[in-house]
Amino acid sequence: MKQGMWQIYQFPLCPFSRKVRLLMAEKSIPYELIRENPWEFREEFQRLNPAVRTPVLCDEARGITLADSRAICEYLEETSDKNPMINGTATNRAEIRRLVAHFDEHFFADVTMPLLEERMKKRLVYRQSPDSRALREALRRAHDHLYGIDHLIDNRPWLAGSTMSLADLAAAAQLSVADYLGGIDWNGHEQARDWYAVFKSRPSFRPLLSERMDVIQPPAHYADVNA
Amino acid sequence: MKQGMWQIYQFPLCPFSRKVRLLMAEKSIPYELIRENPWEFREEFQRLNPAVRTPVLCDEARGITLADSRAICEYLEETSDKNPMINGTATNRAEIRRLVAHFDEHFFADVTMPLLEERMKKRLVYRQSPDSRALREALRRAHDHLYGIDHLIDNRPWLAGSTMSLADLAAAAQLSVADYLGGIDWNGHEQARDWYAVFKSRPSFRPLLSERMDVIQPPAHYADVNA
Repeated sequence: MKQGMWQIYQFPLCPFSRKVRLLMAEKSIPYELIRENPWEFREEFQRLNPAVRTPVLCDEARGITLADSRAICEYLEETSDKNPMINGTATNRAEIRRLVAHFDEHFFADVTMPLLEERMKKRLVYRQSPDSRALREALRRAHDHLYGIDHLIDNRPWLAGSTMSLADLAAAAQLSVADYLGGIDWNGHEQARDWYAVFKSRPSFRPLLSERMDVIQPPAHYADVNA
Repeated sequence: MKQGMWQIYQFPLCPFSRKVRLLMAEKSIPYELIRENPWEFREEFQRLNPAVRTPVLCDEARGITLADSRAICEYLEETSDKNPMINGTATNRAEIRRLVAHFDEHFFADVTMPLLEERMKKRLVYRQSPDSRALREALRRAHDHLYGIDHLIDNRPWLAGSTMSLADLAAAAQLSVADYLGGIDWNGHEQARDWYAVFKSRPSFRPLLSERMDVIQPPAHYADVNA
């Protein structure tokens, strides 16, 4: 391990790890990845984070261990001046944080979590077939969330206002995992698609798009920056 | 409505509204309460907060509407100098936020939410009897969480370190709702009980202890500051 280098415990389809990685890349903070499958409840990982969730950010040289993706993002925002992503007036910042919570909690519970359960965990962990009813419900809810994004982008250039913010990173992180797992039908969501296309071509996003989760393959459009 | 007065949309047993109210009281920020039952999905409330969750904080005179309890707490922390509750070094602040997330998400999902479902919503909304298996499971998990608090207090005077912080307010808010609903057995948890007793006697906590949720009565020890 390099001196003072951040290590992120994560797996490629963890949306919360993706949010933290996007923020670090936008801030040019280097990191190395450590693969962690939280569903294996590895003892060493339980000691790092009793909640047994990814991501965990560690700097062993400085003895720092950080858990909870929102706490990590606030830490990075406070300790790095570059490209602030929780920015503006106190009211703007509250709106950014409201939207981050919306994507972390509601988009995740409605769309990303059921997709991860049906299309990733059932395949890799439980060796079961996905439940088609649960999948249909996740796709239906994904549409509702895409309408919500269309509506926000109708009124603002970025999700929380006039500049890119952590709200956009949180949304793109969830969407990218849902898209990888075939849960996003972009038809009829021009505004959301155009907004997401901007992300896909950012240098911060490229490493995420090229990664693969074991045997699970994304649809053809997933990593195509022109799709 | 008074000019520039905060209004909080809430119901008496909402743990997230209690966290915000404790923070405002510790900071001497005045507010008035508006009773809101989010399970009624009132249209006007849906417009205020599309997530249809309490608390929502409004200042109509200034045209400010804030939602998501963590975003609200960060806003109050940024706009009030008095009694900072997310304090210390960046690492201390990350630890405070990690613990707030722990109580808001894990304690709530394991203990407060099932108790609210079984002992409040089934009585007031669905007119059903509580599921005794779900209640037993919530009580068992409450014990595990109390052991976690005992352990933290063994090593630190307050949950996140040497001073009182938002982590203590978030924990006390969840515990107070669980205690109201008969979900907390303090026997064998001396450290947690002593820490919670300090809260119960604070002026910020008194208004919460005297409120009642419709026909639901708390156990005798609930509002007793010497219990």
